[in-house]
Amino acid sequence: MGSEGQELEGNVLVAQSGGPTVVINSSLAGVIQEALNHPCIEEIYGAMYGLRGILGGNFIDLAQESQHVIRGLRHTPGAALGSCRCRFQESDMDGLFHVLESKNVRYFFYIGGNGSQCAVRAIEAHAKKIGYGLRAIGVPKTIDNDLAVTDHSPGYGSVVKYVATTAREIAIDDQSMGDFDLVSIVEVMGRDAGWIAAGSVLARHMGTPFDAPHLIYIPERSFSDSEFLASVQKVLENNRYCLVVVSEGIRNAAGDYVRTSGIKDPLGRTELGGAAEHLQYLVEQHLKIKARTTKLGISQRSAAHCASLRDNEEAFQCGVKAVRYAVEGESGKMISIVREGDSPYAVTYALTDLDEVAGKVKTFPEAWIDESGSMISSNFFRYVAPLIQGEVAVPCKGGIPEYVHFAGTKKVEENLFQKKR
Amino acid sequence: MGSEGQELEGNVLVAQSGGPTVVINSSLAGVIQEALNHPCIEEIYGAMYGLRGILGGNFIDLAQESQHVIRGLRHTPGAALGSCRCRFQESDMDGLFHVLESKNVRYFFYIGGNGSQCAVRAIEAHAKKIGYGLRAIGVPKTIDNDLAVTDHSPGYGSVVKYVATTAREIAIDDQSMGDFDLVSIVEVMGRDAGWIAAGSVLARHMGTPFDAPHLIYIPERSFSDSEFLASVQKVLENNRYCLVVVSEGIRNAAGDYVRTSGIKDPLGRTELGGAAEHLQYLVEQHLKIKARTTKLGISQRSAAHCASLRDNEEAFQCGVKAVRYAVEGESGKMISIVREGDSPYAVTYALTDLDEVAGKVKTFPEAWIDESGSMISSNFFRYVAPLIQGEVAVPCKGGIPEYVHFAGTKKVEENLFQKKR
Repeated sequence: MGSEGQELEGNVLVAQSGGPTVVINSSLAGVIQEALNHPCIEEIYGAMYGLRGILGGNFIDLAQESQHVIRGLRHTPGAALGSCRCRFQESDMDGLFHVLESKNVRYFFYIGGNGSQCAVRAIEAHAKKIGYGLRAIGVPKTIDNDLAVTDHSPGYGSVVKYVATTAREIAIDDQSMGDFDLVSIVEVMGRDAGWIAAGSVLARHMGTPFDAPHLIYIPERSFSDSEFLASVQKVLENNRYCLVVVSEGIRNAAGDYVRTSGIKDPLGRTELGGAAEHLQYLVEQHLKIKARTTKLGISQRSAAHCASLRDNEEAFQCGVKAVRYAVEGESGKMISIVREGDSPYAVTYALTDLDEVAGKVKTFPEAWIDESGSMISSNFFRYVAPLIQGEVAVPCKGGIPEYVHFAGTKKVEENLFQKKR
Repeated sequence: MGSEGQELEGNVLVAQSGGPTVVINSSLAGVIQEALNHPCIEEIYGAMYGLRGILGGNFIDLAQESQHVIRGLRHTPGAALGSCRCRFQESDMDGLFHVLESKNVRYFFYIGGNGSQCAVRAIEAHAKKIGYGLRAIGVPKTIDNDLAVTDHSPGYGSVVKYVATTAREIAIDDQSMGDFDLVSIVEVMGRDAGWIAAGSVLARHMGTPFDAPHLIYIPERSFSDSEFLASVQKVLENNRYCLVVVSEGIRNAAGDYVRTSGIKDPLGRTELGGAAEHLQYLVEQHLKIKARTTKLGISQRSAAHCASLRDNEEAFQCGVKAVRYAVEGESGKMISIVREGDSPYAVTYALTDLDEVAGKVKTFPEAWIDESGSMISSNFFRYVAPLIQGEVAVPCKGGIPEYVHFAGTKKVEENLFQKKR
């Protein structure tokens, strides 16, 4: 039975997938709040731990959750439903549709990155094939900003705001120390794309002492030890410190991650340090200058206390629009953000064919990399600056942000894992 | 000429020393604002880069700075006057008093940790010896919380608030992932004392899924690889993830830093990684469980966007009280915070003889370490919880915190360094 354009009665299933962002729960809140507005939607189920909970029928009833929790999702990091990295296989299909049918799921929303969008495409195609009335919409999510078509991905603006804020703060500390020249290295996420490291350029406040970071290295350009050392020396001709922001995934001309510098542990395994430690080693060894490292690690994708309000609101709207489009009869698409203007900044939310997204990667444009290869061009500012605007007010209790969790998850988790959490 | 109890007319010199905290400038603002209230004080000089600027007479005129900048100091990280780690030598004394006399400095305030308090003591003693009328007061500052006598040190509450906030956020991310067991390791500062790592215990919210960190390792207890692995396994019997917070300075039973695990680079130097990498290596090698690391590095002492309001206000008051006590005739003392009660929390500000502070270290009390050696006792809560209360409203511009810098520093810096900054 085809369903396009007709009213389809049934239940919603929503799930989260991939690495969390600080706004992935805001998209979830958007789905839940909008779903409550439509009489054709009866139950609102959340599948726990992505594909794992979808296949196992490990659902919680989201309509049973309190308003306090649903509101709190708007500022809570992590994936409130749980997430997973496992990929959908064609062999999962029969089991999956058995679960959907048994729960009368007619609306499916999957909040995630590329892998999740591939899954939505496959599930929608199978529903058509077997004539099961289902409307499946992908909701974009990734801190990496590497999803195609959409102007940017929910989650990216917040990580940039946190990384740029932290880079400015570290720069101020660096600049305070008057004893010796100093190289300060901050390693951020980004295995294949440099969007996050590039965003740290917003920390620069030219014409003030806060003009760092001075050097930014991203995976889109191959990294050379000797060019790096020459660039550091050049910065230190005029500055007492040099702040370097580096993507974890930078590679040398041979295509190897720069941390694989040949240093081995006693068991012959490659050294434990990452990109930042390699750069620190180069500076201390070859320039005899003190270097120190900060590796933001998981904090950068979970720092909800420093989220972008704009990112948060857009993530919520992506969830809302997904439900609206589905109720109107759309399926097999991903919500994408369309930028209508920079100044004033304005966006609309469109539907993108999943063939244009699934399996594609949006790398950082060459045109926005400075000629030197170690700095980002100012043309990038107009793109990225609007994404970090506004601060999310996070309620605190006892001096620590007060984050929420679903009341219904405990029992399902015990079934899933035979462990508390 | 003795000066105690008499009104002493002359100028103020204030300086900052040691590693910055996010509230060291709040103490500076307290000194400046209070100094403006006393007619016996004429000029208010700031020495740049601590001892270096004191000896070189590299001063800026703080009364010339705008109200916008003085107010902005209350939320700006780093050391706005610049700092240094160099230690005061007796051979510096004649030159120093030559500078003080030439600028008619009669009030000297040094904001810093142990080394700075030693310097204040030596300078005060020399002033007495040569009959130079000077009132010298130390203002406490350290994220490490290892200054003696004072209940706690300005700077400590804010780093705990940031570390506990970040630990809770990372825990929520850890708990989101449902694919496999996970060990997440967060390395924080603390070479000799575990106060910062211990403070992360405030992230725990027992009875909810947010009961991490599960293990905390501090330098006060020697670290054993095998006990660590056993503790991780025990945590993972009931949890799918194990969050470990570790001081950078943990040592094994032989007294060696645990990062010196014998792993050498090709030049024979000890491995590049720190404590967190060593723990990651142990988990992945021996338990075959995925482990990931975050090293907060300099961000933890510069994250003014996540400062404790109480810490900020106390730091300001320490600056204010230093000036008041000096005007009343006191000298050769350090301001200390005296806790008058926990509930309601209340403090007063007293003077401490520098002999009781200089050269002393306050380590984390044995009584607050859990029997297991890998967790902090709940008795510590009553001490630490009040220190992180309240949030500082930091104005943002363009989505990034708006921090200030003195207008007068540029020229002095060029003289000092022959470099811009």
